[in-house]
Amino acid sequence: MMKLIRVDDKRMDQIVSAHVKRDYDPYEDIDLAVQKIINDVRQNGDQALFNYTKQFDGVTLSSIKVSESEIEEALRQVSEQEKAVLQKAADNIRRFHEKQLEKTWLDDGTQGMILGQLIRPIERAGLYIPGGKAVYPSSVLMNAIPAKVAGVKYVVMVTPPDQSGSVSPYTLAAAQIAGVDEILKAGGAQAIGALAFGTETINAVDKIVGPGNIFVARAKRMVFGHVDIDMVAGPSEICIIAESGANAKYIAADLLSQAEHDEEASAILITDSLPLAEEVQQEVIHQLDQLERKEIAAASMQNHGKIFIVDHLESAFQIANQIAPEHLELMISEPTLHLAKVRHAGAVFLGEYSPEPLGDYFAGPNHTLPTSGTARFSSPLGVYDFLKKTSVIHYSREQLYQAKGEITALARMEGLTAHENAIHIRFDD
Amino acid sequence: MMKLIRVDDKRMDQIVSAHVKRDYDPYEDIDLAVQKIINDVRQNGDQALFNYTKQFDGVTLSSIKVSESEIEEALRQVSEQEKAVLQKAADNIRRFHEKQLEKTWLDDGTQGMILGQLIRPIERAGLYIPGGKAVYPSSVLMNAIPAKVAGVKYVVMVTPPDQSGSVSPYTLAAAQIAGVDEILKAGGAQAIGALAFGTETINAVDKIVGPGNIFVARAKRMVFGHVDIDMVAGPSEICIIAESGANAKYIAADLLSQAEHDEEASAILITDSLPLAEEVQQEVIHQLDQLERKEIAAASMQNHGKIFIVDHLESAFQIANQIAPEHLELMISEPTLHLAKVRHAGAVFLGEYSPEPLGDYFAGPNHTLPTSGTARFSSPLGVYDFLKKTSVIHYSREQLYQAKGEITALARMEGLTAHENAIHIRFDD
Repeated sequence: MMKLIRVDDKRMDQIVSAHVKRDYDPYEDIDLAVQKIINDVRQNGDQALFNYTKQFDGVTLSSIKVSESEIEEALRQVSEQEKAVLQKAADNIRRFHEKQLEKTWLDDGTQGMILGQLIRPIERAGLYIPGGKAVYPSSVLMNAIPAKVAGVKYVVMVTPPDQSGSVSPYTLAAAQIAGVDEILKAGGAQAIGALAFGTETINAVDKIVGPGNIFVARAKRMVFGHVDIDMVAGPSEICIIAESGANAKYIAADLLSQAEHDEEASAILITDSLPLAEEVQQEVIHQLDQLERKEIAAASMQNHGKIFIVDHLESAFQIANQIAPEHLELMISEPTLHLAKVRHAGAVFLGEYSPEPLGDYFAGPNHTLPTSGTARFSSPLGVYDFLKKTSVIHYSREQLYQAKGEITALARMEGLTAHENAIHIRFDD
Repeated sequence: MMKLIRVDDKRMDQIVSAHVKRDYDPYEDIDLAVQKIINDVRQNGDQALFNYTKQFDGVTLSSIKVSESEIEEALRQVSEQEKAVLQKAADNIRRFHEKQLEKTWLDDGTQGMILGQLIRPIERAGLYIPGGKAVYPSSVLMNAIPAKVAGVKYVVMVTPPDQSGSVSPYTLAAAQIAGVDEILKAGGAQAIGALAFGTETINAVDKIVGPGNIFVARAKRMVFGHVDIDMVAGPSEICIIAESGANAKYIAADLLSQAEHDEEASAILITDSLPLAEEVQQEVIHQLDQLERKEIAAASMQNHGKIFIVDHLESAFQIANQIAPEHLELMISEPTLHLAKVRHAGAVFLGEYSPEPLGDYFAGPNHTLPTSGTARFSSPLGVYDFLKKTSVIHYSREQLYQAKGEITALARMEGLTAHENAIHIRFDD
């Protein structure tokens, strides 16, 4: 089921590219539909949201806002033990993210010069959480907590209701624990339009984060620039580097935990051991049988499950960097000694007791990670995504006087005489 | 010429919104043309670039790469004094940006737990610089230096040639001083397509930064996600908060230095002094006459020049935060004491000897700043734009054992049994 591919060092790049395809797709048809929905929400506000919720989610809502009593009712449905679990995960996430806080800095140099950057939270953040049949309390924690740690005052969550018009109690409990300020029943491109432009009920936000289907993803791209967005997420991915002696059962289980997400999810093993590769192949088939989401995981393995066999571990790291996977597990001895070789990955899991679900749910680092090779240029969601900077510049008269020749020379090179004049006028008299 | 608007505290929000419009525009026609150009470059590589350069820039190139001898020839055309000016600006920019460097951090907690983030530079950055008649050596420095400080190994600059097939000597000199690794003659959407997807001559990059016209801006948006981009820049903006007693000549000169950029540039004064407002109105008309780019500046002032009159300075800060301007000058006494009131701005200039051209060219902070109100959620270009993070997670066997109840409970809430299995399998035997 998982395809074995032998990679020789000379053609590594081409072989890996041929097997790990991530196509750039303009999605023109979807974009037309999404643009129409966004325009409708901009023009017709809440009424458009009510209409789309009826059309797409199959329910006629009486109110878009989730009421206090709905939240109280939901909290009664979640056991104390479950609440404690959510709370413990929230504590770990908060503790990790507090390390990402950045502070305003100002350097006052010679002669009264001041240079620096103010670091401030954005004011309003919107958080999209899938709903209907999907229940992702962990996504609520992972998206809302960094915003709150950054100091965002207003965090609003949008999520599509199920056919009875309700939101999952787990989702609501997680929102309460994370400190979400307002919860609204809206999904799809229409929810993104509402967050970007506001409606009678929904205040427009400055940034939209959180996972969603292709309509949500395309809508986020479309409003990007008017508001900020986190990233355009693709299917989930895991890549495991394992050496001879690694535990094939653990490897197979971790590969499958990624594969069960989605038929387009991809699970890749890179190893220098053919026996291990073959053992993992067997284990995957064996374990698949016991999974509830067996069909999805099997389809994912069939479509995208790959095992690359390399001559030595150095090549394994090269391939992993080329793939730039969302999750990278190192099932090798003394994995920390190899950290310097990891150039591109969303998150790296070290050793055989650090399986990917530990990061998905509990350890603290964010589970919103760059997919589809975007780890080449982007980062896990973090507090930094909810902070922004303002540069500060102060020169004294003396300081500006000394720099005036250089500033005006640069303005002249660019042919901008009003820029030059703004300097000269201060020293004319 | 600059319109006076009295703002009373009660309707501040609406009055300011009515006068500072920034429309969201899908640009559908331009997008179709841009998509076609990008697709052509993807399919036909260098040949498409040669064709578009002939079509749009009016020149038949023999080579896309700027050769060593072209660079040497350009350096001979720039005076030693001009080189020294570029070098001094580069030194200031480098010194400021070095303060933005971030370091990998790892916390090793109890029982062998390790959590942290690796911080790494992206590998390849592409830098778009306008060309033809436009000459912006300062943009070369401001975009290339942060990349180099971050540790980006390959920085490639693209810029459209003039009708003789050449690139401005100032642009080339700045590229050399900033440490740009390769310079290519290509402009418009075709250059962005080439940077995103690569051609025979151009290696695909991970991130594209730098200013450009509407075709460049839309092309950047279109490839966003496949590669990263800096931001979608709008027309330049300045907002000045000034109190009674501020120097009207300086204020007018600074407003005009912004207005000369572009007919769509906007220059706004907010003051509690009607006499100052009227004096600035007169000074703008008086100074305009002496400017080379008088027509552009006059059109900008006519279209977007505004003076808001407020009852007290507190309201001035509220308006400035609502506008979230690219440049904010505080022409008030003891401006540093008011820094806490600045929530949203690209850069803030303190006092009467810190005019905006000081920041454009020389002081060190980046001149690539968020426009069109995007300072609500985005930051000046910085070293952080060329760094990205990888989370690190390591648990020991004991640590995972203690967390296993919580992790599996969360997996069950989300209905993901393979995630649960990846934990259980490690403790089954």
